[in-house]
Amino acid sequence: MTPAFEALQKELKRLPGVGFRSAERMAIHLLLEKPEAAKRLSDAILSASERVRSCSTCGNVCEEERCSICEDVRREESGSLCVVEHVSDLMAIEKSGAYRGRYHVLHGKLSPINGVGPESLNLSGIAKRVKDEGVTEVILALPNDVEGEATCHYLTELVESDSVEVSRIGFGLPSGASVLYADSGTLKSALDARKRY
Amino acid sequence: MTPAFEALQKELKRLPGVGFRSAERMAIHLLLEKPEAAKRLSDAILSASERVRSCSTCGNVCEEERCSICEDVRREESGSLCVVEHVSDLMAIEKSGAYRGRYHVLHGKLSPINGVGPESLNLSGIAKRVKDEGVTEVILALPNDVEGEATCHYLTELVESDSVEVSRIGFGLPSGASVLYADSGTLKSALDARKRY
Ligand SMILES: [Zn+2]
Ligand SMILES: [Zn+2]
Repeated sequence: MTPAFEALQKELKRLPGVGFRSAERMAIHLLLEKPEAAKRLSDAILSASERVRSCSTCGNVCEEERCSICEDVRREESGSLCVVEHVSDLMAIEKSGAYRGRYHVLHGKLSPINGVGPESLNLSGIAKRVKDEGVTEVILALPNDVEGEATCHYLTELVESDSVEVSRIGFGLPSGASVLYADSGTLKSALDARKRY
Repeated sequence: MTPAFEALQKELKRLPGVGFRSAERMAIHLLLEKPEAAKRLSDAILSASERVRSCSTCGNVCEEERCSICEDVRREESGSLCVVEHVSDLMAIEKSGAYRGRYHVLHGKLSPINGVGPESLNLSGIAKRVKDEGVTEVILALPNDVEGEATCHYLTELVESDSVEVSRIGFGLPSGASVLYADSGTLKSALDARKRY
């Protein structure tokens, strides 16, 4: 409702998942309700911006040249390289404890309609990594949509060879979910991914 | 995943409506995906923190001593003072165009369990405002919960007189909503608020 308030609301609205109303709510929180939080948040943004960068090998967040996962030699033993769209996907897989190999973060997916070609993604080093790090399996943990599909095709052509298998994560009903409440796309994937019982 | 990353995520998570996952997503966005947005957001926070303050009369956001609503003499003509919990409530009512009187923002509601007494709210000036500004109706636009109820009782005792009527906004089924999908609390309010047809 004032110029500086609106400028802040506009910047907050650019954050992923933040709409007009939540940006307004956040601005009020920072300016009127918890003014001490405003300084802390702005300091945390500046300090993290200075320190955090993208791992030169995999694209994960790090404060050194390479991230702790790339520096961990035990991670190489599995021979697996898991390709994800975003660092948040990497973090989700790490938290699940279901995978202990290495990662490669694309920071996006191919989307010709939106002008996202291979050169806009973190793709340049991946073929070299597969060779140099003795990767035997590339696991594509990319979304189950048209753009994820296109990215999987592109990556398969890029890295597949006699010594490298390419696989894609399974799609279907989430753990604990009921068929009744699943959307049609999920049910289609679940049926397509059916296995002999 | 790095100390500076986690510090930023923690500050983002303090924003209203932001959980662990969305804070992580926001931090990745600011640090890796749109680094130019990080500087812009941090500047917007600092600049707004310096300029925006609480209106000394009503508690709305402003960059002067008093907000544009309190400075607008036509707003006084209606004789109405609308009491809201948060500035965002004021903004929502303004956007609806359904009210053209003045406001008083409490910045919270009474909650003895959480240690929120009258002294923690923007309550001190309200009785004086009602007298000085010739208010004839105080409209309580506070939430329909135990704390909203307690705050309404407190305010009524504070401002009601022979020349001042206190009213509370109506509760019931939202515009366009169906009885089928309304929760029990809403249905109870809607039934309690029934009118002869
Ligand atoms: Zn790395
Ligand atoms: Zn005001």
